[in-house]
Amino acid sequence: MAPPEENTGELPSAEEVVDVAAGSEKATRKPISTVVMVISMQTEALPLVNKFQLSEDHDGLLFPKGVPWVRYHGKYRDLNINLIWPGKDLSLGVDSVGTVSASLVTYASIMALKPDLIINAGTAGGFKAKGASVGDVYLASDVAFHDRRIPIPVFDLYGIGARSTFSTANLVKELDMKVGKLSTGDSLDMSPHDEGAILANDATLKDMEGAAVAYVADLLSVPAIFVKAVTDIVDGEKPTAEEFLQNLVAVTAALDQAVTQVVDFINGRCLDEL
Amino acid sequence: MAPPEENTGELPSAEEVVDVAAGSEKATRKPISTVVMVISMQTEALPLVNKFQLSEDHDGLLFPKGVPWVRYHGKYRDLNINLIWPGKDLSLGVDSVGTVSASLVTYASIMALKPDLIINAGTAGGFKAKGASVGDVYLASDVAFHDRRIPIPVFDLYGIGARSTFSTANLVKELDMKVGKLSTGDSLDMSPHDEGAILANDATLKDMEGAAVAYVADLLSVPAIFVKAVTDIVDGEKPTAEEFLQNLVAVTAALDQAVTQVVDFINGRCLDEL
Repeated sequence: MAPPEENTGELPSAEEVVDVAAGSEKATRKPISTVVMVISMQTEALPLVNKFQLSEDHDGLLFPKGVPWVRYHGKYRDLNINLIWPGKDLSLGVDSVGTVSASLVTYASIMALKPDLIINAGTAGGFKAKGASVGDVYLASDVAFHDRRIPIPVFDLYGIGARSTFSTANLVKELDMKVGKLSTGDSLDMSPHDEGAILANDATLKDMEGAAVAYVADLLSVPAIFVKAVTDIVDGEKPTAEEFLQNLVAVTAALDQAVTQVVDFINGRCLDEL
Repeated sequence: MAPPEENTGELPSAEEVVDVAAGSEKATRKPISTVVMVISMQTEALPLVNKFQLSEDHDGLLFPKGVPWVRYHGKYRDLNINLIWPGKDLSLGVDSVGTVSASLVTYASIMALKPDLIINAGTAGGFKAKGASVGDVYLASDVAFHDRRIPIPVFDLYGIGARSTFSTANLVKELDMKVGKLSTGDSLDMSPHDEGAILANDATLKDMEGAAVAYVADLLSVPAIFVKAVTDIVDGEKPTAEEFLQNLVAVTAALDQAVTQVVDFINGRCLDEL
């Protein structure tokens, strides 16, 4: 699918800024070198694998034996790109979507690859009441869960798990991207309880992984950004599953174009320049 | 809290059966040595920490820096017991309940400790229509999710994620324990959509971690059992959160007694004798 090229992500970049004194400052003043993309569906992942000429990791050393998780990797410009796809469920053969798989691969990838930045890219539902249309690509400013209701003080906030994402003002401005809040749950459909929570989260977008990826990235202190393309209008007329499947391939092209632009922007820049 | 005693779980047990030829048979014909208990609330965990005289792991080598996860460990009879509690959320200070944290600690614990058996113990809601009463302790025969609705063929089954737990016929018989199906979701309350899914799952019990622990244990081929004590009746009159908090401490005593009986039964036995 692409020429094999080994990149462990451990070699220092030629552009590495080595003369910055303060340790904490150093991390943000070094150009971004290793990127982990977490992408939950093969249909979303494969065009990017081709675009960045990534090769599949077959040595089986990164992840434990038995898991379906797949790493595609390669050098793109000055970046070590690792695209992590949770793979097909071993019993059922469908993509391992949702928060549990996304949490696990994010955790395992951070532990193994120590990335400078996580990019969670994927499709999402959009709310037309918030200005979303099919094919729009957003950067998420905030994430939260909408299906973790724990009506006990403070546990309620833990369940919602709202957090701001890594700030990327220059990226948003340069690429003229839409910005909105993202709400995550493990269902493709939306129950009335979900709807109330999504409204409370002030969300423009609804996905099945984002807030879980953000939680793990925060836990391990890795900055994370969220690029989400709208496949279906949640507050529209058409049933979500039907609209989602209808638009998946076309919208994936828009997603992949946006991710490429984001990666091109990131290349050569430090975290605090994003 | 308890005398410190280092147990890495890597030393072979004195009772280890070394003369069994077949490799695959060997795993089940060796007495169980290392046990990982996944327990999501401190209130549930601490009585067992005292009971088994476990000591907290302070060396920080098992889990990555920054995570709130806590390992208590020690030798109890012939077993290396590791009690893993996901800890208090670093921002909010409440127990890190739910499927994401449970998945992560189960994964990290299996990778670090290579246990022979996982025991997920905790409190649960029970359905009186299925015969459950407050204070009952169950072994779960099956687990499934009730809040992962993906109405696309095969994805729907992936979302539900139904699986049978490790079979423990002798344990059930010897301890005369109740057996029922467990349904897992990230909310303490129950929406009408959840209720329909729980009914479809034929569940006697409702918790917030079980099916996620089972998923990860299955992924990494570690047998897992589920000991769940009923704190509240879901299909009863009282609001779940109120009844849960009212009964938590008292029911935890019943849970800990049952877990101790289970551990005493496991001691010296092979997996296929459970």
